[in-house]
Amino acid sequence: MPFTARIEAAILRSIRAGQSGTPPPKLAAALEHAVMPGGARIRPQICMSVAAACGDDIPTMSEAAAASIELIHCASLVHDDLPCFDDADIRRGKPSVHKAFGEPLAVLTGDSLIIMGFETIARQMELDCARAGQLTLALARSTGMPYGICAGQGWESEPQVDLSAYHRAKTGALFVAASRMGAIAAGHDPEPWTELGARIGEAFQVADDLRDALYDEETLGKPVGQDEIHARPNAVSELGVQGAIRRLKDILGGAIASIPSCKGEAMLAEVVRRTAERLTPVAPNKAPAHPAE
Amino acid sequence: MPFTARIEAAILRSIRAGQSGTPPPKLAAALEHAVMPGGARIRPQICMSVAAACGDDIPTMSEAAAASIELIHCASLVHDDLPCFDDADIRRGKPSVHKAFGEPLAVLTGDSLIIMGFETIARQMELDCARAGQLTLALARSTGMPYGICAGQGWESEPQVDLSAYHRAKTGALFVAASRMGAIAAGHDPEPWTELGARIGEAFQVADDLRDALYDEETLGKPVGQDEIHARPNAVSELGVQGAIRRLKDILGGAIASIPSCKGEAMLAEVVRRTAERLTPVAPNKAPAHPAE
Repeated sequence: MPFTARIEAAILRSIRAGQSGTPPPKLAAALEHAVMPGGARIRPQICMSVAAACGDDIPTMSEAAAASIELIHCASLVHDDLPCFDDADIRRGKPSVHKAFGEPLAVLTGDSLIIMGFETIARQMELDCARAGQLTLALARSTGMPYGICAGQGWESEPQVDLSAYHRAKTGALFVAASRMGAIAAGHDPEPWTELGARIGEAFQVADDLRDALYDEETLGKPVGQDEIHARPNAVSELGVQGAIRRLKDILGGAIASIPSCKGEAMLAEVVRRTAERLTPVAPNKAPAHPAE
Repeated sequence: MPFTARIEAAILRSIRAGQSGTPPPKLAAALEHAVMPGGARIRPQICMSVAAACGDDIPTMSEAAAASIELIHCASLVHDDLPCFDDADIRRGKPSVHKAFGEPLAVLTGDSLIIMGFETIARQMELDCARAGQLTLALARSTGMPYGICAGQGWESEPQVDLSAYHRAKTGALFVAASRMGAIAAGHDPEPWTELGARIGEAFQVADDLRDALYDEETLGKPVGQDEIHARPNAVSELGVQGAIRRLKDILGGAIASIPSCKGEAMLAEVVRRTAERLTPVAPNKAPAHPAE
């Protein structure tokens, strides 16, 4: 992926700022454990790709946007893994934060990473205050209440679930943020980029459902069969494996078709194609080409 | 307290925005449970008082700053009450959020309130982008890592505690934020206001230690003796009850002396005096004049 070095450097800058001076050592270590080494960094890749397609005239602004999205995504993984949610012992092939550091530090790690996400954007305000402000609003809308990932997770505590609101918020919101924030970081109108993020998010949800149904725990690097255990809606139980794979390809085709006409259009279509390859499961119980999130 | 109506209205505006549209109903209710009705709102009162002393030329800016501090303060209370921390069943005389709504929604309530705090400030950026940006940075520094309330709480998981770093971060940071953000919201340099916040924070910590040692659970509206149970440092065990009360009065005297020369100086000293009255415990096992936090 073309933006990996810039994304990793931006995330590391934020983590190092949070570890500066004399912080409590275990919480400082837990922050790094939660974020490094990362998964595919799909959301930051989308954000940087859209920024590049829009000219990326303030590189540190798009890097901050991408890093902020990943920090809050990692925060959501740490809190989702807690005993009161998925009670997951492993994440990205190593112990989850609460397994490695205990529950109190896992709660605080998530909280600190959320704050760090907003701080990362705010540090760019001197370069362009209006863009930094818009990025903050876009990030908050896609992560909090009433429509962000917190809201999405909140639907899991309801007896009657609004399924489309659930998926849109839980998985889709941060992909929409990724594409919109890429445009905002480069000074462009985010509206034409919303559909791209929404479709990639939808594809990602179907791919995640397929992985959850097809892979074993060792291959996936996290517990499997969670949707069945928690009776969560799942594309495989609805469409079957082959149906879900067809649906995934359709959605990604639609994502490519939705890319607005711009000078980076071809590059961006290539990024979506690579994301598609990465997302599509190869075969049951065969190792995926890329690490899971 | 003179700013109560403006503070409550500002907090309610933020909560209502988070409940708008079609949010998951229980999480929407949990947000309100965590924030309404409030305690003394001491931090927002300090923020508004400093803003008033500095001219308060953009009233919605100081209101947003005050509300953002209280939202994040409430988030920290919700997460502190979780079973993995204090395991508190009651807060402000009613069930804690995890008791009323369950642990998953309590985790999400804290997360949502943190995000809502940053969103509340970002909504003011159109009025003055630079001030909103500075407020965001001040809020992040006082709440996250390495020096904010998350860091303070993180020290409780360390075998060797840096006591001054612990108190400065856990209790002091949000009071420093309150005084500094009041100045920033009114377009003033926050530096001269740092000491006021730091001293009120120190006083609050001593008062909290006194309440924890002197009151019973029914009077206090939350579990007592927590410092002893969790072997946390406490001013009463260090100085005795009378020694801690003298220390409290000294600190508040110092707080009043630290107020920079300004047109609202007398009003602000009066606010500190009223805060002092509110903080000073009346007598063992006698009801406090004001609700606890």
